[in-house]
Amino acid sequence: MGRVTTHHRIVRLEGGTTTSRQDTVVVEEPLEIRVAGRPLAVTMRTPGDDIDLVHGFLLTEGVVEQVGDIRTARYCAGDVGAGNTYNVIDVELAEGVAPPDASLERSFYTTSSCGVCGKASIDAIRVRARHEVSDDEVMISAAVLAGLPDALRGAQRVFDRTGGLHAAGLFTAGGDLVALREDVGRHNAVDKVVGNLLRTGGVPGRGLVLLVSGRASFELVQKALLAGVSTLAAVSAPSSLAVDLAAETGMTLVGFLRGDTMNVYAGAHRVDTKARATPSGKALRGAG
Amino acid sequence: MGRVTTHHRIVRLEGGTTTSRQDTVVVEEPLEIRVAGRPLAVTMRTPGDDIDLVHGFLLTEGVVEQVGDIRTARYCAGDVGAGNTYNVIDVELAEGVAPPDASLERSFYTTSSCGVCGKASIDAIRVRARHEVSDDEVMISAAVLAGLPDALRGAQRVFDRTGGLHAAGLFTAGGDLVALREDVGRHNAVDKVVGNLLRTGGVPGRGLVLLVSGRASFELVQKALLAGVSTLAAVSAPSSLAVDLAAETGMTLVGFLRGDTMNVYAGAHRVDTKARATPSGKALRGAG
Repeated sequence: MGRVTTHHRIVRLEGGTTTSRQDTVVVEEPLEIRVAGRPLAVTMRTPGDDIDLVHGFLLTEGVVEQVGDIRTARYCAGDVGAGNTYNVIDVELAEGVAPPDASLERSFYTTSSCGVCGKASIDAIRVRARHEVSDDEVMISAAVLAGLPDALRGAQRVFDRTGGLHAAGLFTAGGDLVALREDVGRHNAVDKVVGNLLRTGGVPGRGLVLLVSGRASFELVQKALLAGVSTLAAVSAPSSLAVDLAAETGMTLVGFLRGDTMNVYAGAHRVDTKARATPSGKALRGAG
Repeated sequence: MGRVTTHHRIVRLEGGTTTSRQDTVVVEEPLEIRVAGRPLAVTMRTPGDDIDLVHGFLLTEGVVEQVGDIRTARYCAGDVGAGNTYNVIDVELAEGVAPPDASLERSFYTTSSCGVCGKASIDAIRVRARHEVSDDEVMISAAVLAGLPDALRGAQRVFDRTGGLHAAGLFTAGGDLVALREDVGRHNAVDKVVGNLLRTGGVPGRGLVLLVSGRASFELVQKALLAGVSTLAAVSAPSSLAVDLAAETGMTLVGFLRGDTMNVYAGAHRVDTKARATPSGKALRGAG
């Protein structure tokens, strides 16, 4: 885990004074994902939990459906004469699992030849989603939702040292943390928690809530959907396409989750507003 | 510009009360960029300034070097029977300009067969960068830098309505705003300002400062470098690879730029700390 942060000597300006000091910086390095030796994608990520990341990426891009679809995922040993950089992972798929299209992202978004638009993208993802989330009957109290950002922040190990990391956390409907991952890229943080869920037999993630530290984009709603998670909560704003996709697939999308204020953009039927938050943040079932 | 924001009816929870109301959401839609009719990339962006975006993307990915390298860039008229979605732009390159590799991103990051790592990425970008920025002798006063985030925020038109947009601004060393663009993706916001600079004859952007509202990743340092801009300032944290690339290419990288406090991660020789900020934010040359 030594590669998660690094140190740089910086010049710090503050209140008219200039000092030289050591600063902790989050590490960003490329990870190349190969399937059967063939390069599939490169993502700029923070090293650590790379096997989770690869599992989550392949799941949320629709390449695999269950953990058994991946036979092995391991670091490439490196070229002759060069050391192992731990920045290349080669995946061997199980027999019968179709290898991904050469250009995954392109085939993903552009299904109609000259009519790529929001609607087209949503249609494309609905075909690919293997888990129905609209029938997930979980109820989550607003008071539990209100406590999640603090729980996420409290469990982040690296953030306070660098200020440069996104976090993604999976929680039960009761507010218990299932998994948390941090990364310089928010999509990677989500892939890491989802990949961990896949590897521990938790996909589809019925009844769970995925919380992200930043904004909710189309891509993040899509990743939750592919993992079978029916509720996505974000500390910041959602995009229009994120709201559209959540609404069309029966997901619950919460944005601007800050203390006991939040906006429910889709699937408000899963949010139990009758349970109120006490000042301590614990749920208290009120009289009405 | 009507497509920059949209409205959704949401459920708002606040202080124990639940209300239904209209909320303004930033629009996210895919833009497919084609070169000579062949799909090159799809980016999830906020509609608007798409021609700038395409110019900036092609410049900062190393496909073109000057504005004359792009003969035309226009929206695809749409399929027979389908309307124009304004989500596909077809680019015609000038004679003699080599069309990009089919897999731009992959060829960009993975130059060594099994040794992709931070160093390899930096080597790759250095070969591609056409403008030397290390010899840009511009000096920027710390007081001017301190005033840029407020200037950027003040010029943002959409942010206050949605809370969901990244902004990128180009400023002169004196603190005057050259161009500002907003987008749901920070790389798009940068491509839009850089593309605007290219189209108005301003590349290489010697003497300019690029300010971004969020973090500074490797990708953003790279985009500044390809545009010939020697100083990148970010309101939030840089990554390790961003610092490495800035240091190796002679760029100035400022992070955590918040009022008169800031961290200079590389190229501190361009930051003039002798000019101090007055309470009004204006630069005042001090005695020592």
